[in-house]
Amino acid sequence: MNREDIVKELSVQTDSKIILLVIDGLGGIPVQGKTELEAAATHNLDRLALNACCGVTDPVFMGITPGSGPSHLALFGYDPLRYQLGRGILEALGSDVEVREGDLVARGNFATLEGGLITDRRAGRIPTSECERLCAILNKAYSTQRDPEIALFAGKEHRFVTRFRTPGLADALTDADPQKDHKPPVPTKALAPEAAKAAEVVNRFIDEATKILKDEPVANTALLRGFSLQPSIPQMQDLYKLRPAAVANYPMYKGLARLLGMAAYKVGPETRDLFDTLETHYKDHDFFYIHYKKTDAAGEDGNFSAKVRAIEEIDTFIPRLVALKPDVLVITSDHSTPSLLKGHSWHPNPFLLVSPTALPDNIGVFTERECAQGLLGRFPSLYAMPLMLAHAGKLKKYGA
Amino acid sequence: MNREDIVKELSVQTDSKIILLVIDGLGGIPVQGKTELEAAATHNLDRLALNACCGVTDPVFMGITPGSGPSHLALFGYDPLRYQLGRGILEALGSDVEVREGDLVARGNFATLEGGLITDRRAGRIPTSECERLCAILNKAYSTQRDPEIALFAGKEHRFVTRFRTPGLADALTDADPQKDHKPPVPTKALAPEAAKAAEVVNRFIDEATKILKDEPVANTALLRGFSLQPSIPQMQDLYKLRPAAVANYPMYKGLARLLGMAAYKVGPETRDLFDTLETHYKDHDFFYIHYKKTDAAGEDGNFSAKVRAIEEIDTFIPRLVALKPDVLVITSDHSTPSLLKGHSWHPNPFLLVSPTALPDNIGVFTERECAQGLLGRFPSLYAMPLMLAHAGKLKKYGA
Repeated sequence: MNREDIVKELSVQTDSKIILLVIDGLGGIPVQGKTELEAAATHNLDRLALNACCGVTDPVFMGITPGSGPSHLALFGYDPLRYQLGRGILEALGSDVEVREGDLVARGNFATLEGGLITDRRAGRIPTSECERLCAILNKAYSTQRDPEIALFAGKEHRFVTRFRTPGLADALTDADPQKDHKPPVPTKALAPEAAKAAEVVNRFIDEATKILKDEPVANTALLRGFSLQPSIPQMQDLYKLRPAAVANYPMYKGLARLLGMAAYKVGPETRDLFDTLETHYKDHDFFYIHYKKTDAAGEDGNFSAKVRAIEEIDTFIPRLVALKPDVLVITSDHSTPSLLKGHSWHPNPFLLVSPTALPDNIGVFTERECAQGLLGRFPSLYAMPLMLAHAGKLKKYGA
Repeated sequence: MNREDIVKELSVQTDSKIILLVIDGLGGIPVQGKTELEAAATHNLDRLALNACCGVTDPVFMGITPGSGPSHLALFGYDPLRYQLGRGILEALGSDVEVREGDLVARGNFATLEGGLITDRRAGRIPTSECERLCAILNKAYSTQRDPEIALFAGKEHRFVTRFRTPGLADALTDADPQKDHKPPVPTKALAPEAAKAAEVVNRFIDEATKILKDEPVANTALLRGFSLQPSIPQMQDLYKLRPAAVANYPMYKGLARLLGMAAYKVGPETRDLFDTLETHYKDHDFFYIHYKKTDAAGEDGNFSAKVRAIEEIDTFIPRLVALKPDVLVITSDHSTPSLLKGHSWHPNPFLLVSPTALPDNIGVFTERECAQGLLGRFPSLYAMPLMLAHAGKLKKYGA
């Protein structure tokens, strides 16, 4: 039996409650000797660490920088090497697009077609409002067509998501994108016989869209890539006997949570909205995933002091988690986002677990380097879920 | 090649000696700030730790609470996810029942049958002496039958083990047990065609036993569950070129050791009997597994101070191990049994290795938290065996 099957077989439903706070991109590397987390004043996290069991986690394996998809999957106990989410589905989730079983989604660019060549794959990065206008034109054109149903969802600048809805679509498709400027358009090709219908549907759409947009000055065609169906993925209810909920205010994290079977509540944009929502629904679930984005955003911007402030902000909300008295409270990150690197990184994540059944390690400062000295040692994020379930009394004994 | 094949290929026979002392259920979680091991005065273990290399081990993987079967298999280098021992075989081993290849064994309950329903699955928890009387009646009835040979072995209260001996039995069988009171008896069903004969043999036995016991006032039928054949498992002699011996006074641990090819000596009930037996046979083997049970028993009872005393007792015998000057001495546990939890747990086990080829980590106190700071770090119990073989000079180089 493998890890997933064993956890599934051993898990039992109980009344105990687990809170998992994901401080996105929390881990960093030092600037003038200190990481963002070391530089931040985090009295509440530090106090928590004193009675916690700490460690550091690798989302995929050492050296691998994960996207948000794999790093979150691992935290929820899904092997990121086994379950892979296509770019299309992640983009769709991130744009709050409703995706049903059998829907085919893809990332799109509006582009410029001149003399049979794609002369600008991003159509001069048209303003978002232009993108919205073009999507509206195409959506109107397709508004009465039922087979396939086709819908476009505008993103930032030249970006959009397309959703094809009709029975019998598959996602074994090549990108309909020449990848470089000054090349002719490339139709998608089916990589397997069962994707033939999907290829036909997609290529017909591109032709039709190009006809509809032929008089547009800049954005007169569409490129599509990252075709994906909604992945078939086990639900957390089945795997862990949980009634899980996501408390996140960014669409991608809500969408990813829904894919795994979590209820995803509507949450306002402020940090306090996360905690208000958690408190409102605390009685209704036994597992809560809370997602805090500002740390990652500041790290991606390369803004060290903004990341420090984001950490200090989330620290002030920790007492509201503690006040709920969950049976297990874990505070960690999905991946590191050092502001020095302006992006995700492969560095391990600080991890802290508080529970009456934990063996505290007397670490009084919640930082990357202190956590690495913790009793949990260094471990794959994949084991966070069985560990939380065990501490919550939700895993039976394995074998006699 | 996998881990097991590599160790098998690289292992060589030498005269060096390994002692593995398993202090069952040693690890704990704090009560008033200290675990049982932290609270115990363990001068000998602490002195040993100073010259040892320490770490902590996970028997299965993080979060998984193992039974004694999987946790011991892992310590002996058998992947507990690959090798699984049925409840019946463990119960048989625990009852000192001789099990040969092809024997089918099962756990049994004497139960009460009234008006076609099982009204009490435990027959009012009849006294052990009653169970012994009923087993004797049935054994007498079957004493001259040769095909199949059927034997019962009385356990505590209503419990017994049944052994069926005839060629062609398989263990793909459902439990012959309604699991709940006030349900009709359930015959076993074959889950695969090759188990058809076994199902017939088992169901005929239950019918016959029910007829023989029909005038008994309370215990007038038998329920059987956890059917298992002796598992086919590689022998330690073949895997590691060892001449291994078990020094244990509880039947289950002796039985499990025999399954893996160890000689299992008859050992008296006292702790000193373990060490007397070890010294008597020290010249005859190159690997010794010593099993000390009292720590686990006290933990299961939730008796913190009894567990502390059990730890202090085993500590006094450590000098007798050291005096034998083994090439490798490992002191660890199969799993944790925190008295706070009154049962096995998923917490990692303290692990200590003494050898002239070890790199000591200057840890002067043998506790869970100190071991977690040790040079061996946190590792799966599965690697204890290659580590011991390596330090004993029993593993060749891998590759050129």
